[in-house]
Amino acid sequence: MILTVTLNTALDITYRVQGLRPHASHRVTEVTERPGGKGLNVARVLAALGHEVTVTGFAGGTTGAVVREHLTGVHGVTDALVPVEGATRRTVAVVDERTGDTTQLNEPGPAVAPAEWNAFQGAYEDLLTGAAAVALCGSLPPGVPVGAYAGLVRAARAAGVPVLLDTSGEPLRRGLAARPDLIKPNADELAELTGSHEPQRAAQAARRRGARSVVASLGPEGLLAVTPEGRWRAAPPAHVHGNPTGAGDSAVAGLLSGLVEHLPWPDRLTRAVALSAATVRAPVAGEFDRAAYEELLGRGVAVTAEAGAA
Amino acid sequence: MILTVTLNTALDITYRVQGLRPHASHRVTEVTERPGGKGLNVARVLAALGHEVTVTGFAGGTTGAVVREHLTGVHGVTDALVPVEGATRRTVAVVDERTGDTTQLNEPGPAVAPAEWNAFQGAYEDLLTGAAAVALCGSLPPGVPVGAYAGLVRAARAAGVPVLLDTSGEPLRRGLAARPDLIKPNADELAELTGSHEPQRAAQAARRRGARSVVASLGPEGLLAVTPEGRWRAAPPAHVHGNPTGAGDSAVAGLLSGLVEHLPWPDRLTRAVALSAATVRAPVAGEFDRAAYEELLGRGVAVTAEAGAA
Repeated sequence: MILTVTLNTALDITYRVQGLRPHASHRVTEVTERPGGKGLNVARVLAALGHEVTVTGFAGGTTGAVVREHLTGVHGVTDALVPVEGATRRTVAVVDERTGDTTQLNEPGPAVAPAEWNAFQGAYEDLLTGAAAVALCGSLPPGVPVGAYAGLVRAARAAGVPVLLDTSGEPLRRGLAARPDLIKPNADELAELTGSHEPQRAAQAARRRGARSVVASLGPEGLLAVTPEGRWRAAPPAHVHGNPTGAGDSAVAGLLSGLVEHLPWPDRLTRAVALSAATVRAPVAGEFDRAAYEELLGRGVAVTAEAGAA
Repeated sequence: MILTVTLNTALDITYRVQGLRPHASHRVTEVTERPGGKGLNVARVLAALGHEVTVTGFAGGTTGAVVREHLTGVHGVTDALVPVEGATRRTVAVVDERTGDTTQLNEPGPAVAPAEWNAFQGAYEDLLTGAAAVALCGSLPPGVPVGAYAGLVRAARAAGVPVLLDTSGEPLRRGLAARPDLIKPNADELAELTGSHEPQRAAQAARRRGARSVVASLGPEGLLAVTPEGRWRAAPPAHVHGNPTGAGDSAVAGLLSGLVEHLPWPDRLTRAVALSAATVRAPVAGEFDRAAYEELLGRGVAVTAEAGAA
């Protein structure tokens, strides 16, 4: 079983409108809802690849109940979310049908009480015993200590479970000190962490700060991996058009799935890039296009070894 | 008991953000939720004035459950909403903290099935037997026939219950033909209905189309009443600063409450204008400032008779 942790789960709502104009009133022409938060997105992709996944983190209120109800319909995903008094946040993505652009409104998330945070840590340690790998994903809701990920990384390492950390800002900085096996920052997150805008150099700096391996997502240019086993770049065949929402989460799912299958790095990166590009191409944000994935896996992804000692 | 009908109830959500920019991502700094839809707003004001109110219309899904849960906390309001399979719509008001401006996103509402519409009509006729007055408020959800209000007006008249209709567009046009006792359009709705932008003339035209009395809300200029008993203008003492959300619904509550207390028109109008202005002044959208209301009632509203035969 692969475990994904989403401390700040969300009910992701998408509104389609004809032209978003500040200070005007808009009729929403279409409403869609799905469970959100990075770890839940990663879990959905892993399940679609055939893995058994358990999701944990927090869920509360009527929005949390809706998230959990949606999850029961996803084959291969086991819900081990921990209840909280506060309501799971909503995120609202307003898609302008005229331009295709999206405006995002993100609620802050429920205030998590110390007793709830303690209850989660106990549940997490129990779940680690059955896990082949764990991914710690996304932002922290109010009330969860900023050093939370460091503790969760340490617990995973103590249990001998490989741990991937996908967050940003101070929670990433603190989490790194506990030496996660893998981090997957994007270029901005990596620059914020290290102060360097040169991805090779920044990834190397992140390794010095504690990450065993760094896979940086460079948007349309694909992935850069800096690991003890070597350095690689993996890129899709050409610029992929579509909606990048969820592409990073699909890359995480590809990396985790390759990790538990003990694939060599180039194969893990191929899978991650193919899933990521197939997510950009899918008509629905956050889903992946299976035909595109299979095609890219077969022959579409170029992996090249990079110079420089790891 | 006063009955208010809200066929398209809503869960009204307000987001505060620091500067709304299309195509950007925003952290919502504050989230508030309350039951919405014009008839529910009217009911809340009536209850605050000491009236017993019963609310009906449709509620469904988890959003409908949240609306009903909020209503249980409002003293004086009895929930007689009829369940529907579809989910009650949300409305999202995004308040830009820098400018104070609001951007509104309105979901369309659940599709109402013919059997659900029939069930509502039966419940409505039962509720009319105990009602001193009824207000039919707001838009129609998908699936409810556009002539719905005409049937509801006729049923009220057959039961001898005075009926106020507060809607717009085609539902207003069709509803008028059934001869409601009172309509409360704003200047735009009145112009759309009659083709005239001169409120006196337009109100007179609306009476010819079937309304016994017309009270037009003219924004900061107050109300214009054209009735069989005479014509009046009622205005607040000076321009009232604040948020006009819900001011029209408060005016409806004032008119209904004056109607069931058999007040003369000038007193009804004074109450409606005072409530409306006290709603604009209140810090929370849709609430009214009771001290401001009492003060305006005492000496702040100017009512003047207008020339011209009614």
